[in-house]
Amino acid sequence: MEERVDGRKLRFQHRRGEVLAAATEHALDQGLDGLSLRKVAQSVGVSHATLVHHFASRDRLVAEIVERVLAETLAVPDLPRDEPDPLRAIWRRATGESGRRHVRLFVAITGQAMYGDAAIGEAVAASMRQRTELIAAGLVEHGCPESEALPVATSLMACLRGLFVDLLTCGDEQRVHAAFEDAVSELENRVARWRG
Amino acid sequence: MEERVDGRKLRFQHRRGEVLAAATEHALDQGLDGLSLRKVAQSVGVSHATLVHHFASRDRLVAEIVERVLAETLAVPDLPRDEPDPLRAIWRRATGESGRRHVRLFVAITGQAMYGDAAIGEAVAASMRQRTELIAAGLVEHGCPESEALPVATSLMACLRGLFVDLLTCGDEQRVHAAFEDAVSELENRVARWRG
Repeated sequence: MEERVDGRKLRFQHRRGEVLAAATEHALDQGLDGLSLRKVAQSVGVSHATLVHHFASRDRLVAEIVERVLAETLAVPDLPRDEPDPLRAIWRRATGESGRRHVRLFVAITGQAMYGDAAIGEAVAASMRQRTELIAAGLVEHGCPESEALPVATSLMACLRGLFVDLLTCGDEQRVHAAFEDAVSELENRVARWRG
Repeated sequence: MEERVDGRKLRFQHRRGEVLAAATEHALDQGLDGLSLRKVAQSVGVSHATLVHHFASRDRLVAEIVERVLAETLAVPDLPRDEPDPLRAIWRRATGESGRRHVRLFVAITGQAMYGDAAIGEAVAASMRQRTELIAAGLVEHGCPESEALPVATSLMACLRGLFVDLLTCGDEQRVHAAFEDAVSELENRVARWRG
């Protein structure tokens, strides 16, 4: 009996990553609003008991999906360090088909964090701070004075996030892409001044 | 009997605005996620029947709350036309106590629009476009070439919205206020160039 349970545990353990990946795909399609273990089980093709075994509760599953999406969305660290045009690379990736699905869920998660549980709010905050610091370090490499790097990175990330939201909400491709190009060329002017 | 019904209708009609205002206050405190007619009735102090009479359904009530919040949040048109420092005025208002409550719900609504019903998404989109066009018109008055006004306004609004989200999510007052000041002084440089 014990062996059977252990064997099952092992198989479950092996499948945990797969189940989480499939549950994340479900959330990327449907959002988190009406997400329930029952719906995820149905969509992923596992039993309700398997989900409970792996994730204990709906809230725990949502927390793991959120972590996964935060780690994957706008994955700045993935860019090669010598990427000559990192902002356009981020923009192209985030506005591509797969990028949009991730950004959409990220925006929904950020919205939920406004009144949602504190753990999700803190995960979103940690992710925002971390990315901002990465961008700040990149700006310093491009000649930005250390004392200005964090405010400049904060407003740059705010602008990018705001443009993604505008694009996903309004769908005005031309207007938003032109705004992105405007923001990048302003930043390029600044980089030229820093290096001047 | 008919007269009694008419009298009641009149009283209800009179109270509709009050009930909507109170329901909006409830949403500003709690968000829209778990909002139900039952909870609103309890919080506002009216009967469930009164809510149904005025708003028919939970979705219709939410739609009216969304409209009201969109109209009130970042109410650019309220600024006097000769406001010497409109961006700082918008910022001060939106980051004040009452402003934050409205912006918080606005961010939550935007998040819900990602997977939510199309009517709310369209209301948010219309509101974003309208504000962007107002800002674009303001930029033209400050010397911005007509052809650049819409992209510049789009990235400026994106930056402001992004900074509000950062502030509400992370609560890093100093970092975000410094970023706002940085963005404003960059814009002031641009205005000087346009006028130069």
